Order: sequence, then structure tokens, then C-alpha cells
Amino acid sequence: MLNFEYYNPARILFGKGEERQAGRQAARYSAKKRILLHYGSGSIKRNGVYDRVVASLKEEDIFFVELPGVVPNPRYSLAQKGIQLCRENDLDFILAVGGGSVIDSAKCIALGTHYQGDVWDYYLDNGKPVEHDVLGVGCVLTIPAAGSESSTGSVITREEGLLKRSYDGEVLIPKFSVLNPETTFTLPDYQTACGASDILAHLMERYFTQVPHVDVTDRLLEADMKTILYNAPVALREPDNYDVRAEIMWAGTIAHNNLLNTGRVGDWGSHNIEHELSGIYDIAHGAGLSIVFPAWMKYVYKDNIDKFVQFAVRVFDVQLPFEDKERIVWEGIRRLEAWYQSMGLPIRLSDANIPGDRLEEMAKKSVLHCEHVGHFKKLYAEDVHEILKLAL
Amino acid sequence: MLNFEYYNPARILFGKGEERQAGRQAARYSAKKRILLHYGSGSIKRNGVYDRVVASLKEEDIFFVELPGVVPNPRYSLAQKGIQLCRENDLDFILAVGGGSVIDSAKCIALGTHYQGDVWDYYLDNGKPVEHDVLGVGCVLTIPAAGSESSTGSVITREEGLLKRSYDGEVLIPKFSVLNPETTFTLPDYQTACGASDILAHLMERYFTQVPHVDVTDRLLEADMKTILYNAPVALREPDNYDVRAEIMWAGTIAHNNLLNTGRVGDWGSHNIEHELSGIYDIAHGAGLSIVFPAWMKYVYKDNIDKFVQFAVRVFDVQLPFEDKERIVWEGIRRLEAWYQSMGLPIRLSDANIPGDRLEEMAKKSVLHCEHVGHFKKLYAEDVHEILKLAL
Repeated sequence: MLNFEYYNPARILFGKGEERQAGRQAARYSAKKRILLHYGSGSIKRNGVYDRVVASLKEEDIFFVELPGVVPNPRYSLAQKGIQLCRENDLDFILAVGGGSVIDSAKCIALGTHYQGDVWDYYLDNGKPVEHDVLGVGCVLTIPAAGSESSTGSVITREEGLLKRSYDGEVLIPKFSVLNPETTFTLPDYQTACGASDILAHLMERYFTQVPHVDVTDRLLEADMKTILYNAPVALREPDNYDVRAEIMWAGTIAHNNLLNTGRVGDWGSHNIEHELSGIYDIAHGAGLSIVFPAWMKYVYKDNIDKFVQFAVRVFDVQLPFEDKERIVWEGIRRLEAWYQSMGLPIRLSDANIPGDRLEEMAKKSVLHCEHVGHFKKLYAEDVHEILKLAL
Repeated sequence: MLNFEYYNPARILFGKGEERQAGRQAARYSAKKRILLHYGSGSIKRNGVYDRVVASLKEEDIFFVELPGVVPNPRYSLAQKGIQLCRENDLDFILAVGGGSVIDSAKCIALGTHYQGDVWDYYLDNGKPVEHDVLGVGCVLTIPAAGSESSTGSVITREEGLLKRSYDGEVLIPKFSVLNPETTFTLPDYQTACGASDILAHLMERYFTQVPHVDVTDRLLEADMKTILYNAPVALREPDNYDVRAEIMWAGTIAHNNLLNTGRVGDWGSHNIEHELSGIYDIAHGAGLSIVFPAWMKYVYKDNIDKFVQFAVRVFDVQLPFEDKERIVWEGIRRLEAWYQSMGLPIRLSDANIPGDRLEEMAKKSVLHCEHVGHFKKLYAEDVHEILKLAL
């Protein structure tokens, strides 16, 4: 176990009807009572969340400017517009209502409002220290997946060159996040599946580490993975099942709040590779991950086969003789692929109608700003190319 | 799953040598740079922790007043002395160096310093709102067990009548806690065992709930329990094994930071009963729990046998036919008792040389300030008496 610092002050309000608390919570953090209300398309208007949130803001006499229009893989240009709105209207807090994309966009606006330069500087240089005021962000989460509701991270796509980059910083942890599983009842099956895949991927990125002696976080990660593996298929069959939606939503937040990453170094190679995929083809993040992760596993497992044996045995209950570790590992990967397929997710590029003609381009772009990606095994452009070929 | 609010802003600094950061962290929270240095007996002087902490305070030019002398089951009278010292010396922060008792005592002092009345009011009325300033508390934890290093709770024993009572409040969450597993190398075996028993008990108190659909927290609790069950015996054989000590220490903090309690209601009946035991006989908390918990289980399991079957199967790998649930449950309890014994802990009152002549008195005291204790099954005085008889 490595030395670590853990700090997560996000206040979570979880359960039925909790979005009615958004106004009261926003009032705690917005001294001026002037906020940006940020969301995506109209889905929050159809399911009533918008009305309940707006009512709670009015109850607290909070002035708000609306900025809708966030799309999956949130765009830099919209965030720029948000920064302008916050400056022009003297807003001091952002309430993000929606999924991870909306929250990530809100974080970018929060970071950029009082920054003299171009906020993209931070996304080009993850680790750049923040020396200016950052607006507070609150969330009403309507899609279980991102983890952004209690994490330090924000991922933004810049249209010019279709570059998708991330920034992580303690200042980006939301002040509060409201999670009401009822808001996820109306998610289309495909989005439910993609959300589950995304949560699972966050857990696997953390799980596959070369740091030894990480017993407690290994076990906690396995616990969270099993929660997703067992509950997500039920949510497809029973979309209005509150209990199952609640398990997925809470497991999703825990997956990404950094507790399960303590004392270890995650891999994140698959995420980097997937970013190139969804940056070019605009495929849902979770669907990109269900394509990339099995291919990544097949390419890297020999670098620490025992970790993959543990994964197959403890997460997927593979009960084959330990004398043949390879078979155990491949059976584990096969079960993971079967789970993805049972959720209606692609496991090959061809399943998502993605042609094989730009693999090398994506491989090169994935290591554009660093020599290699991943920690479990360092991946250079040629490795990423091989992984993408395994995903054909 | 119940609606819940989760908030835990304690900053954790975990790993080798991290106590050297105590001064820098204390300086962040003590505006006056005047603090109370609170600890127990001289063990922190023998293992060098005291010297390193004091050096780090001096580096930051922090003025400090020392208050040693905290004992297990920390006393109200010493906390009163601490309150007086803070008032007389205009101190605005408390650094607790030691185990749960020292931290609990520090929290009591922090709560009492600016309170006009008697701080015991809070311990008599858990839930009483705090309407005055509370000092910040920082910790350097040297015993893995209490959970107090990131929890809302404080347990204090008042000598008069040997009353042991607790208070819980968000204001009592420490600002920071330093956890260096190396500081636990020199713990006597018995204390290591008692610490492990205490952590396990915290997990079991949360695990045994009547709230349905708590899948993710069930699994996380099982993960943390297994970490303790597998690592604690190794720590007895290899006291200087950093990795094993680290697993226990981090699992212990996670056990009690309330994340694993989200959406559910813990039982805490065994803790209440044990408080009477250690209040009268001054037995170590963990040793009292290893006596009380199996007896409690035998008395209550029929109120939700499936929860106990799940515990036996998933935590202790009991593989008996499901057609006889009783046998599965009893085998689970037997394995728990065997684990306690392998750790050198008592599982009966007689193992700890506690006579059976005051059982009724303890039973009555346990429900002195409430009609009953426990949530899994409501326990009245006569139930507690029966449980104590099962522990003979």
C-alpha cells in the first residue's frame, strides 16, 4: 500500500424526492444567491426534475441564469459560453442538473470564470496548480455513472481536432450532490447499460494496479463490481425498480469518489484509449469501454497474471484448476464479455459499426501529450494500436 | 435502502512517516497557533511519535499545552481539566495523539470549551443541537480500532456511577487524521486483538440491519470484515509487517466513517451492552465485544434468519445445505467464536474472570436512558439479561 492523502468533502443527499433540497443547499454556498443553472437536453423537463429544482430555487429567492445544451462528451465551446454568462451576470455558483457531462461542463465553467487565461490550459496540463477563485458546483444527478458528482475530475472535448482531455483538482469536488434514483427510471435501456459499463470500468481501472498489498481496497472494489454486475441486468428488466436503481446509483458514486483508489495507482489506459474512440466516433463512453476493456485485458494480463486470476475467481467466480492460470484469466474475460453482451453493449468495434481504418491515428493521438498511457503496463502508440486491433 | 445524507470531510494522511505532517496540518486549522496536545500514557514517548509530532509543531511555531493521562474508557474528569486548560490558555485547536480514547476525550474537550453549561449535557442527550463554537480536532492515530479519527462520535465515562455515554455530531468530525501503520508495530498482542475485534464489531453492528435492499453496503461491509478476519491473525504472528498493519488500520477507519452505514440503520445493541460491561469491569472494549456479540447473535438471529445465513455464507464461507438455515447460522457463529479464540480473546464472561452476580444490574443500566437498546431486535432489560446469561 502506498502512502496517500484522502479527502472528499462532497455532501451527498440520497433518496426519493431529495432534489427538492437543491435550492436550500445552493443557498448555503451561493453568497450572492446568483447561480448558473446548467443542464443538457430537455429530459429533465419531461421527467419533472427541472420543475422541482426550479421551485426549490425560487423558494430560496435564488436568481438563476439558464444554460442548457450540454451533450455527451461535453464541448469546450459551450463551457466558454457558460464562463461568459457567469462573468456577465456576476454569478457565484453553478447548479448542474443531469449526468456526468453536465457536471463536467459545470466544473470547467467554475474553473474558468475567474481565470485570466484560456481554461483549456488546465486540460492541456493536468496538474497545473489553481491560483484563482473557483466557483462552487452543486449537482442534481440524473444518470448513475459519471462519478463526477463527488470526484475531482472534469473531461471536456474541444471540437477543433476533436481533442478530449481531463483535469483533476480538489477544487473541483462538488459542494453537494443530490442523487435520487427515481430520476433514472426513464433512462433508455442503452443508457442504463452504458452507465453500468462506465461504473464497472472505473472500478476495473482502479483494480488493475501493480501496487502490491492492497487487500482492503481490492475487496471493496470487488464488492462494488459485484453490485453492478448483479443489479444492472435487473434494472433492464425492471426499469422502475427503485431498490435496484438505488444500488446502481450509490455504487456508481462510490466507484469514483477516490476512496477505492487509496494507496494504489489505477491504470486508466482503457479510458485514454476510449477517449480517442468517442472523440472521433461520438460513441457513448460506456459502449466504447465495453469494446476497449476486454481487448486491453487480453493484451496486458501477462504483466501480472495473478491479479487477473484474482479478478476471475473473486469477481466472476471462475472455478477452474489453479494449475492453468491462463484458462482462468480467459474464462474471466469471456464472462465479462458475456455480461456486456447480455446488457446489449458492443464488445467489438464492428458491433458498433466502427471501421478499422483509423486505428493508427487513434493510437497516435492517445499518446499525443505524454509518451505513454496506462500504469499496469505502459502503453506506447504501437501497443494501443495492437489493442485496437484486438478489438476489431 | 433508506434516504440518507453522507458527509465526511476528514482529511486522511496515511502512511509511513506521515506524523511529521501534524504540525503543518494543525497550523492550517489553528488561527491562533495555540493548541492542546492531548495524549495517554507514555507509549508515544517510547516509540518516538511524541518527539516527531512535537518537532513538527515547533517547526510551525505552534504554542502548545500538554494534557496527558487519557486512559481506556476516557474519563469525564480529565476532559473537564482539558476544557479548563483550553479556556485559561486561549487555545483554539486540539491535537489528539493516541487511540480512540484520546480522540474521544479531545472531542469532548472541543465540544465543552465554549459551552456555558456542563458538557455532560450532550452525553445525556445525544442529538442535542450544538449552538456554540466547537474547537477543531486533529489526530495522530496510533491504534487501529476506534474509528473516532474520522467519525462523528465521542464516548466518555463519568466516574460517578460509572456511566459510559456517547455523543454524535457532525461538528466532532476531526479536521485531519494522520494514520501511520508503523506506530502500531509495538502494540501488545492483546491490544492488536482487541482492536481487530472492535473494528469487526463496528462492521457487524452496521451489517445486521432490518432495512431491506442494502446490497452495495452489505458487500462493502463484507469486504471490510474479510480484510480484518484475514489480516489480524497475521499481525499477531508478524507484528512488524507494515502491509498487514496498513490493511488493518485503513480497514478500521473505513469501518467507522459512516460510508458503510449509508441507507441502513445499524443495530448497536451489543455496543450498548458492552458499555455496561466495560463501565463496571474496565475490560478492554474489544474483549467485551467478543463476549457480547456471539451471545447477542444467538439471542436475535431468528428475527431475520436470512441476514445471518448471508453472513455465515458470504463472510465465513459456510457451505452447508440451505435446507437447514439454523445449522448454517450456528456454524457461522461457531467460526466467529473460533476466530476470537485464535486471537486470544475471551468469548465468555468466565474467560475474562467476570462473575455472573451483576448481570441484572448491567441489564437494567443498559436501558436507563431509553426504553430499549438495539434496532435489529429491540432489547429491553430482560432481553439484555438473557443475552448476558448466554455469555456466562
